[in-house]
Amino acid sequence: MIDQTLLPTKLKVIECRNVQTVWEAIKMLRVRGAPAIGIAAAYGLCIGLQDLPEDANHEMLRRKLNDVADYLASSRPTAVNLFWALNRMKAKADALYNMQTTTEIRESLFAEAQAIHEEDRHICRSIGRFGQELIKDGSTWLTHCNAGGLATADYGTALAVFFAAAESGKKIQVYADETRPLLQGARLTAWELMQRSIDVTLICDSMAALVMRQGKIDGVLVGADRIAANGDTANKIGTYGVAVAAKAHGVPFYVAAPVSTFDLSLAEGGEIPIEERSADEICNGFGKRTAPEGCKVYNPAFDVTPAELIAGIITEYGIISPVSRESVEKMVPLC
Amino acid sequence: MIDQTLLPTKLKVIECRNVQTVWEAIKMLRVRGAPAIGIAAAYGLCIGLQDLPEDANHEMLRRKLNDVADYLASSRPTAVNLFWALNRMKAKADALYNMQTTTEIRESLFAEAQAIHEEDRHICRSIGRFGQELIKDGSTWLTHCNAGGLATADYGTALAVFFAAAESGKKIQVYADETRPLLQGARLTAWELMQRSIDVTLICDSMAALVMRQGKIDGVLVGADRIAANGDTANKIGTYGVAVAAKAHGVPFYVAAPVSTFDLSLAEGGEIPIEERSADEICNGFGKRTAPEGCKVYNPAFDVTPAELIAGIITEYGIISPVSRESVEKMVPLC
Repeated sequence: MIDQTLLPTKLKVIECRNVQTVWEAIKMLRVRGAPAIGIAAAYGLCIGLQDLPEDANHEMLRRKLNDVADYLASSRPTAVNLFWALNRMKAKADALYNMQTTTEIRESLFAEAQAIHEEDRHICRSIGRFGQELIKDGSTWLTHCNAGGLATADYGTALAVFFAAAESGKKIQVYADETRPLLQGARLTAWELMQRSIDVTLICDSMAALVMRQGKIDGVLVGADRIAANGDTANKIGTYGVAVAAKAHGVPFYVAAPVSTFDLSLAEGGEIPIEERSADEICNGFGKRTAPEGCKVYNPAFDVTPAELIAGIITEYGIISPVSRESVEKMVPLC
Repeated sequence: MIDQTLLPTKLKVIECRNVQTVWEAIKMLRVRGAPAIGIAAAYGLCIGLQDLPEDANHEMLRRKLNDVADYLASSRPTAVNLFWALNRMKAKADALYNMQTTTEIRESLFAEAQAIHEEDRHICRSIGRFGQELIKDGSTWLTHCNAGGLATADYGTALAVFFAAAESGKKIQVYADETRPLLQGARLTAWELMQRSIDVTLICDSMAALVMRQGKIDGVLVGADRIAANGDTANKIGTYGVAVAAKAHGVPFYVAAPVSTFDLSLAEGGEIPIEERSADEICNGFGKRTAPEGCKVYNPAFDVTPAELIAGIITEYGIISPVSRESVEKMVPLC
C-alpha cells in the first residue's frame, strides 16, 4: 500500500509481509479512508493466518482468526469500516467450517478479501460513470478535502467522476481547497489529480468564494462521510461553507458517495453527531506553534450541508436529483 | 516596538537606538500594518538625525534628512504609509528652514513624529467609540485577519471596537478566523484579544459558515485595506466568503477603517487591483512542504466584498450605513 503519511513529498509503497506491519499502517494513518481501511484489514487477516501450520484444524483456525481480528481491531478502534470488514471475514469463515477443510477456508477468506477489494473498485467506477455525465468538456470544478483513490480501492468517489470524465476525453480543470486543518486537499487531492495529469490548481479554503465570484467555477463536487434519510450530508469541515457560496453564485453543488454512506436511521442532518478534534491540529499543525499557548479552539471535524443546497447525489446506482426523502428512498436499498 | 515575527510564542520588545535597527525591523516585518510602519518610519527619521553634530547648519540637516529618508524608504519599497510618513516629515522640515534653528527643527520633527503617532491613536479610539455602540452586552462576534493594535499605534480598527466595548463593561465573545495562508488571526488577533482578557475562540476559516449556522454569531466585524467610492471593500483574502456566509445566515457584516482607507478615485471594487503572492505561502508555509512539488497555486492576497453585503462602515467620524456612493460621500472628505 502507499504510505499516505509521506505524500505529497514522497511516494513510498509499503509491502506488508506480516500482520504487525498492517496494524502499524492502520494505526499510523499510512492507510486512511473508510473503504481503504476495510480492504487493508481484510487482507491483513489473511496475512495473519500465514503463521498457522499446514495441518491446523478448524478449532486452531477459529482461535487464530479471532486473535488476529481482535489485534487488527485495536489499531483504530473508531474506524467503522475496520470492524465491518473484519466481521464480514469472520462471518465468511463461520459459514464454511462445516463445508470446507482448513486450507480451503483460508483460500476462501483470501477470495473474500479480494471480493471486498473488487466490490469497492466496482462501486467507485460506477460512481465515476454516472457522475461524468454531469461534466461538460472544458468545464472547471471545485472540490474540498480528498474523496479519491487513496481513500478507496483505487478510484475514489468525487475524484472518480473527474477521472472518468478525463478518461472519456473531456478536458477539465479542478480547483482543490487545501482543506484545513489537516490539508487533505493539498497533500492528497492535488497529488492524485497531478498523477492522472488533470489540470489542478490549489487554493486556500478561504479563496473558494472568490474564484466562484470570478466566474471560474462551473460546479462543485465533494465526497461524503454520512448522509441522512432526507439527503442532508455530513462531510469534511468547510464543505457547508463551500455549499453556501455555491448557492450564492448559482453554481451547482454535487455529492458523490456509495449508498453505504446513507444512514437511513437518521431522519435529518441535525441527528448526525459532529466529532470535535484536538486543538493541536489548528495550533500546532506543521511542526510550528501558530497560536498563543492556552488559546481556546473550536475544531469540528465535519459539518452538515442541508439537502436544499445539494443539486444531486451521485451513487453507484445513479444520480439522486433533486435530493429529497422520496428520491433518496427510491435509490438507496433499505438495510 | 513589539517584534511581531516572534508572536504568539514570544513577546519581545525591540529598542531601536539607531536607524539601522529601525530599517531592519521594517524590512523583516518585525513591525507590520500600514499605520504602524508609518509611525516607525517617522521616529526612525528622528533617530537617524542623532548623528548630526550639535553645531550642524541647515544644509547639513537637509542632506542628512534626505539620506536617512532614502535609506528608510528602501526597507519596504511597496509600503505606501512608509512614504507618506517620510514625506510628511520632510515637508515639515521644509516649512521650518526659514523660521527655526537646526536644533529647533530637530525638536519640531520629533514633535511631528509624536503627532503622527498620536493622530493614529486618536483615530483608532474614535473608531472604537463609534463602533462599540453596535455591540450588545453578551453578544458574540466573528473577525477575520488582524485589524488590531499591532498594525496601528496601539488600538487597532476592528479590534478597537471590541476593546472599547469591553472597556465600557460589556461582556463579549469573539471567534477569530485563523486566516490562511499567513495566519494573522491565529498569531496576532487571538494574542491581542487574550492580552485584553477578551473571550476569544480560534477557528479555521472553513468553520465560519458552520458557527453562523449554529446561531453562535451576532455580527461580523473586519478591517479594510482599501475602500472604493461606492463602499466596495478590499480586505484580506477570505473576507468575501465570510460576508457571503453572513448574508446567508442573516448576520450583519461590518467594516471598521479610518477614512484614509477610502480611495475615491476608484468608482467601484472591480477597479481595485488584487495582488497575487508567492505559492510558497500555501505550499511551504510552516517549515513543512504541504503540497506536491510543481503544483499550480492561486494565491490572491485580497478579495473585494461588494457594498451590498456590508451593513455599515465604522470610521473615526461615524458609521456609514447603509453603504452607498452617497453615504460614503457625506462622511469621507474629498482629498
